[in-house]
Amino acid sequence: MLLLMSCDMFGGDVHQALDSAFAIEVFHNFTLVHDDIMDAAELRRGNPAVHIKFGVNKGILAGDVMLSYAYQYLCSLQADKLAPVLQVFNQTAIEIMEGQQMDIDFEKRTEVTAGEYLKMIEYKTSVLLAAALKIGAIIAGADEQSRDLVYSFGLKLGLSFQITDDLLDTFGDGSKVGKKIGGDILNNKKTLLLITALNKASHAQRDQLFLLMNEQNEDKKIAETIRIFDQLNIRNLIENKAEELFAEALQSLDSIQIPDSQKSSLKDLAYKIRNRDY
Amino acid sequence: MLLLMSCDMFGGDVHQALDSAFAIEVFHNFTLVHDDIMDAAELRRGNPAVHIKFGVNKGILAGDVMLSYAYQYLCSLQADKLAPVLQVFNQTAIEIMEGQQMDIDFEKRTEVTAGEYLKMIEYKTSVLLAAALKIGAIIAGADEQSRDLVYSFGLKLGLSFQITDDLLDTFGDGSKVGKKIGGDILNNKKTLLLITALNKASHAQRDQLFLLMNEQNEDKKIAETIRIFDQLNIRNLIENKAEELFAEALQSLDSIQIPDSQKSSLKDLAYKIRNRDY
Repeated sequence: MLLLMSCDMFGGDVHQALDSAFAIEVFHNFTLVHDDIMDAAELRRGNPAVHIKFGVNKGILAGDVMLSYAYQYLCSLQADKLAPVLQVFNQTAIEIMEGQQMDIDFEKRTEVTAGEYLKMIEYKTSVLLAAALKIGAIIAGADEQSRDLVYSFGLKLGLSFQITDDLLDTFGDGSKVGKKIGGDILNNKKTLLLITALNKASHAQRDQLFLLMNEQNEDKKIAETIRIFDQLNIRNLIENKAEELFAEALQSLDSIQIPDSQKSSLKDLAYKIRNRDY
Repeated sequence: MLLLMSCDMFGGDVHQALDSAFAIEVFHNFTLVHDDIMDAAELRRGNPAVHIKFGVNKGILAGDVMLSYAYQYLCSLQADKLAPVLQVFNQTAIEIMEGQQMDIDFEKRTEVTAGEYLKMIEYKTSVLLAAALKIGAIIAGADEQSRDLVYSFGLKLGLSFQITDDLLDTFGDGSKVGKKIGGDILNNKKTLLLITALNKASHAQRDQLFLLMNEQNEDKKIAETIRIFDQLNIRNLIENKAEELFAEALQSLDSIQIPDSQKSSLKDLAYKIRNRDY
């Protein structure tokens, strides 16, 4: 959808962009099929994951062929568009896979820096949004600078979205978020919340946070961790970070040299994402 | 190597074809990494398979990123070559994955027709040889007819090679072939030998072949099955089939409208493959 909206914003013909939008969508779903195998996730969108329903081998092979079909969809592009689109698509695919590997690696590490975490969510989440927007711009024939700006808009929006997602997992209203609150804390996930807390913590608080990672009482683990987060003003700090990234995203969108009226759809979408309830 | 030889045969610059040859090679190795996971194979080329050495998750992810890198290598092609090469590459990738799925499906079936078996080995083995040759031709600027003929040469050569491989597994000289003879029989593999035998067998021989599929004594299983194959003249029939396909391959090569002297390398290679010792 982002690809089509970007193409439309730059005055392109969305019909010429449909196959590339399919490519992004099929690629995204390929990553979900393989990620569910790697994460041993049993459910996807409330239904049995592919590898649960059809077995791991078919899950691997289905993902492989979906990746190939994604490239097949790109092939209908005009020759002058194919090379630049393929370049963005390949780079993005490789970054997403590297992001997934970073995510897996981080699970086994005791500590992760904020920079590493931001790079991981940039690769795992944001580059696909950014690439979809940039490919839409390429198909519409937008100039190099506009392509880069809309890419930057997507990248920052994605980061802001993911960080807000982490906030919701700890500070959200369970009934509104649609899942149990505190899952990241229970799984000792190295989110920006925990990383920032560990950075700002006193020696005593640091020791306590590490002790809580082995706490068996789930309610106590969540409540005590949040209590330390509150002492360290983590919610506020992370909200500010998300807001800062959101502002940078908007700034990129604002800098694109086209009439403001053409930007309203993407801007509305950005605000809709930001104003999620929690 | 086939890609470079084809490019050279058609008078192309092999340096312009190097990246595409890398793409084929990296793609081929991607399929091996994922196939080894699906087949639970522990060794590859005498060393621990990727999923054994690094775990299944890294095996899946390494394969995925290799597939993406294969496409990345294709991106260095000139714009006018990129689209036709990508078309061949995508179609081939999808066929190979479908061939792998057919192979997995056949294991669970009692019977497979000769047509189904030939389609499976065409997809799983031959199309990659054929595609490598065709892409070399495209890069060299060969005309449509020549591209199709060199593709057909590779396809038929690949089929002939695979059928000979099946023959070697049952009738070869273990010390020369480099593996235990009779592995396909032990695994009840539905090769062209078994399929042809079942088609030509009397009711009694058919019943015997099915009984042997459950025989626990390995030496007896191999010897008795080969005895029925011999009664049905299977070795001769399959050798003729392989030879027929080899002749068709050479015919395709002969039909290409370039001087015979340019074809000698590929022709030599074809004969080398055919004259494997068994």
